[in-house]
Amino acid sequence: MHAYRSHTCAGLNSANVGQDVRLSGWVHRVRDHGGVLFIDLRDHYGITQVLADADSPALPALEKLRAESCIRIDGRVKARDAALVNPKLPTGEIEVYCTDVEVLGPTDDLPLPVFGEPEYPEETRLTYRFLDLRRETLHSNMMLRSNVIRSIRNRMWEAGFNEFQTPIITASSPEGARDFLVPSRLHPGKFYALPQAPQQFKQLLMVSGFDRYFQIAPCFRDEDPRADRSPTDFYQLDLEMSFVTQEDVFATVQPVIQGLFEEFGRGRTVSTDWPRIAYRDSLLWYGSDKPDLRNPIKMQIVSDHFRGSGFAIFAKLLEQEGTEIRAIPAPKGGSRKFCDRMNAFAQQQGLPGMGYIFWRPKAEADAEREINRLYALRRAGQHDGPITIAIQSEWDDEKKNAANEIQETLIEGDIVRAKFLIDAYFGEHEASGPLAKNIGPERTEAIRQQLGLGVGDAAFFLGGKPETFEAVAGRARNEIGRELGLTETDTFRFAWIVDFPMYEKDAETGKIDFSHNPFSMPQGGLEALNGDPLEVYAYQYDLACNGYELISGGIRNHTPEIMFKAFELAGYGKDEVEKRFGGMVKAFRYGAPPHGGCAAGIDRIVMLLADEANIRQVILFPMNQRAEDLLMNAPSEPTNDQLRELRLRVLPKDA
Amino acid sequence: MHAYRSHTCAGLNSANVGQDVRLSGWVHRVRDHGGVLFIDLRDHYGITQVLADADSPALPALEKLRAESCIRIDGRVKARDAALVNPKLPTGEIEVYCTDVEVLGPTDDLPLPVFGEPEYPEETRLTYRFLDLRRETLHSNMMLRSNVIRSIRNRMWEAGFNEFQTPIITASSPEGARDFLVPSRLHPGKFYALPQAPQQFKQLLMVSGFDRYFQIAPCFRDEDPRADRSPTDFYQLDLEMSFVTQEDVFATVQPVIQGLFEEFGRGRTVSTDWPRIAYRDSLLWYGSDKPDLRNPIKMQIVSDHFRGSGFAIFAKLLEQEGTEIRAIPAPKGGSRKFCDRMNAFAQQQGLPGMGYIFWRPKAEADAEREINRLYALRRAGQHDGPITIAIQSEWDDEKKNAANEIQETLIEGDIVRAKFLIDAYFGEHEASGPLAKNIGPERTEAIRQQLGLGVGDAAFFLGGKPETFEAVAGRARNEIGRELGLTETDTFRFAWIVDFPMYEKDAETGKIDFSHNPFSMPQGGLEALNGDPLEVYAYQYDLACNGYELISGGIRNHTPEIMFKAFELAGYGKDEVEKRFGGMVKAFRYGAPPHGGCAAGIDRIVMLLADEANIRQVILFPMNQRAEDLLMNAPSEPTNDQLRELRLRVLPKDA
Repeated sequence: MHAYRSHTCAGLNSANVGQDVRLSGWVHRVRDHGGVLFIDLRDHYGITQVLADADSPALPALEKLRAESCIRIDGRVKARDAALVNPKLPTGEIEVYCTDVEVLGPTDDLPLPVFGEPEYPEETRLTYRFLDLRRETLHSNMMLRSNVIRSIRNRMWEAGFNEFQTPIITASSPEGARDFLVPSRLHPGKFYALPQAPQQFKQLLMVSGFDRYFQIAPCFRDEDPRADRSPTDFYQLDLEMSFVTQEDVFATVQPVIQGLFEEFGRGRTVSTDWPRIAYRDSLLWYGSDKPDLRNPIKMQIVSDHFRGSGFAIFAKLLEQEGTEIRAIPAPKGGSRKFCDRMNAFAQQQGLPGMGYIFWRPKAEADAEREINRLYALRRAGQHDGPITIAIQSEWDDEKKNAANEIQETLIEGDIVRAKFLIDAYFGEHEASGPLAKNIGPERTEAIRQQLGLGVGDAAFFLGGKPETFEAVAGRARNEIGRELGLTETDTFRFAWIVDFPMYEKDAETGKIDFSHNPFSMPQGGLEALNGDPLEVYAYQYDLACNGYELISGGIRNHTPEIMFKAFELAGYGKDEVEKRFGGMVKAFRYGAPPHGGCAAGIDRIVMLLADEANIRQVILFPMNQRAEDLLMNAPSEPTNDQLRELRLRVLPKDA
Repeated sequence: MHAYRSHTCAGLNSANVGQDVRLSGWVHRVRDHGGVLFIDLRDHYGITQVLADADSPALPALEKLRAESCIRIDGRVKARDAALVNPKLPTGEIEVYCTDVEVLGPTDDLPLPVFGEPEYPEETRLTYRFLDLRRETLHSNMMLRSNVIRSIRNRMWEAGFNEFQTPIITASSPEGARDFLVPSRLHPGKFYALPQAPQQFKQLLMVSGFDRYFQIAPCFRDEDPRADRSPTDFYQLDLEMSFVTQEDVFATVQPVIQGLFEEFGRGRTVSTDWPRIAYRDSLLWYGSDKPDLRNPIKMQIVSDHFRGSGFAIFAKLLEQEGTEIRAIPAPKGGSRKFCDRMNAFAQQQGLPGMGYIFWRPKAEADAEREINRLYALRRAGQHDGPITIAIQSEWDDEKKNAANEIQETLIEGDIVRAKFLIDAYFGEHEASGPLAKNIGPERTEAIRQQLGLGVGDAAFFLGGKPETFEAVAGRARNEIGRELGLTETDTFRFAWIVDFPMYEKDAETGKIDFSHNPFSMPQGGLEALNGDPLEVYAYQYDLACNGYELISGGIRNHTPEIMFKAFELAGYGKDEVEKRFGGMVKAFRYGAPPHGGCAAGIDRIVMLLADEANIRQVILFPMNQRAEDLLMNAPSEPTNDQLRELRLRVLPKDA
């Protein structure tokens, strides 16, 4: 028999009953049922129940076992009593009567229990990552990650791509973040850089004639840590294609990503219609260039309704150039309580607040006024009867009966139920909220009609230069969608964000600079660059999914002439371009093909699929938030010999 | 029609005749056949012949095209005349009559031609790597590499392994070579290291319960450049398994590697019987721990024949402790010329020379003596007749006739042919060479019998402490095998080298240190460590193929107790072990499973398959021999800001 196992801990079932077997694994759980000892023996593949009683020579040794010891047992497979069969386990029909046990790897007291996964501080979990990884959640996240990457690879090969490895110790790459540097020993004083992405290399591959490249590529950015970002290395599905347009890239990527999400989505719906949304529309409609389309709320410009209106703050704002008022419609958000909460949310986000209007049945508004009046009287000691609403004498009996029911509901304090009852019986509505008062009923009604809202709905308003409130508007939209249950769950909704502006103007200096990737081809080519730079759009695109940017890419500028012109507009001379991107520019002089591609964040894809919000839940051995590896002790102090070989000195803190 | 292509340059055949098509690619070659212009249009997939004559509106533009411009053409598919069909090309039945052309990427004068692949200096090839990669040799090497890695991955998945990515920015790993360091910005003065191999992480994965791990893993060693080694990053197939013995690893790896070589060997034979050869036997038999088994020569110890013999050098050597005389048998090497050449080879390799004996027919020996005597007389002016051999009167006619033929052959100077003729007719043999004279016929004959040699064969002898001559003996063995045509070609021969000694004694200091991997499990476990360290063997193994080490691995030491003892023998205290390998040692305290694995050099596998001797022929963007990237300009000087952020100063050269 094999030294360690004849079967895995998922390998035995009723067909094996009566066989002598050998298993190895970890002591997952021990239960002592008075003279009979049960051990759940766990390995990578599953769990097998092992038992021993006083007749077993192994009992004394088994009794001493600690959880998470690594052991080898010999025994005979027995059928479980019918009542004890566990249909959830592949091995649930059997158990192994243990006759011999050997401790292969003993354990000290556990700093982090595995069974049951009790919550522990993340620092402990990272320090004892090897125990954390034995827990079911992380173990299965890592298997998911492994399988996702395998599936991506297979899908890319099937789509006619070849995987190539590009250099890791190389030159600085022009991705705009901070490089990790690697000092050269053979050339002291000079440094290599780790690639932020294989951007230049993949473009060189296209110039080298390799039609379709992909790579599960390690990327390196020396960025400050964030929950959804690794502070050191992370992985991208990087791809590039020659002789393609933007739509070719989309047509190639969608089946890969959609298929991947269908394969690993565990039943969640995957959208098959991936709209193209212009970057500026996305910011307007969703307050974000990575919109969560599970949320149906679409913002609108409502400036006209506030221009010259009685709401002085917005009216004045609109006199300044470049300002706008935008509305966030909030269907079913028509209650003061909800509107006030959202207003408070905007204040937490650093805005002075969000104006709102909500539409409710007129009777409810009347009722609220009456209730407030009575409460005020009561507080003033002038009223001690029940809280009632005034029943009008001209109402028919049905209406009067309804009003009575409403009144009772109101006395119970269930405003929401009352509102629906009122709506059902009375129909009329009234716009409430301070804004509505200020701009008057006509403008309010015009807004309601533009936004397509009705009774029970609300709208929030933000004004100013869009860049000052857009992001908060986007977050408010998320909050509203979530709070009101408008946002779908168990769905992945994708959209291509397109038509990114090539340039932006710095608000303070007025200087024109690239707004995104300087290597994308401007729409309209060289000609477009002769007009207003702020009106130039790039063949650049992102794929958004559920509020995350999953993919970013572009059709590249493969013409040195257009590239120099594009950089000139952003204030970079030819020398600077040659100096910074020399290899690529050189290559473009020798028969460069039109090409384009994109890169997808692997960690983020796995986070979405595993439904995890913390990137450390999908990485085997992540750094902590201070970019330290607590298990391996990195970074650490170098030896003097190492520094001497590199001709480096570390300066004191105050230097 | 698509903006760039309706088909690839390999996509058209006679079924497409008459169709209007669009192709994009590079101008591979232009031929002007008096009024008809032929262009070989090349893309990644193939070549299509494009032509135009004076009737085509595209002709003027086509005539201006330079080789390696990137173009798009429109045209109609025509069948070639039967006489002009090229059966070697998939598109050889057709050509495309061009009616429109657009230059997508123009080219400057080429610094490196693509068509015909004329030889150019490597520095030029690396500077214009993107052109070099368009050449057929490199292009197909890179496709081979890509396909090899894909195949390895699929084979590993099929064998039940999961791929996991381990950290790249991490802590120093204990592989014994020099680390590349990465200064930390968030922790100035501290450094990360790039992993020399994912050794510790893969062992942690086993402790984490992931039964079977593999990774096509980037590895980083700051080593001085060599032809078969990348000076920066390189790739390994890294794998590890839990609950296995050495034979389990072999049984897992052989089908993967054998299958791979069968798949990509282009008809070369792949050995299916992979012998296990003990490390010390390998050094003895082949002078190398990575023997080339295509060469049948197996060295032997022949000390006894020289002990107390008339060959004073060896006789004296053998009086010293630890010395040995070894023989390299050289079947069919029995000519003085060949033996002298091999002796000179050994001298080039830094040895005083190699003694030899060769066995030749006695008649030939007589003949040579006679010839030499006559030549000497002629030089002295005492003989001017023809060079003859003495014909003995007692010979029969057949023998006399044969002698005449031999004599003619000898006069022509064809000693080798003469030797065979003599061998055929006379049979008797005589050992020649200075050694044979010194030790006398009895010992010489005993050596001949031990080595199983005969007439026409030779043997070379090396003596001393084996470590002083073993490597040269190995190289001489290669040389002999190659020169004599004994070494097979078109074959891959594999062998597992096993039983590596755990420790070695430093010749000068007498200190005991690890001879190879300190993390391998000693055979016999803790008990074995209580005996003579130099007699301890490790569960460690290499896979040798055709003189290369393809794989190295071991069954790991997963027990802290045995690990501390093993390090203690090599003079490392517990503190030192904890400090250097703290993460792994810590993990071994919490239920570590027995585990083992290995790593295979991807670059080397591809080199063997592509039959390339230079690693730069199988890497996309390699560094040059000075570890510089001439295309991307790496390494380069950092900016002052970068150094300031890292709190580093570069010291002047003389500091």
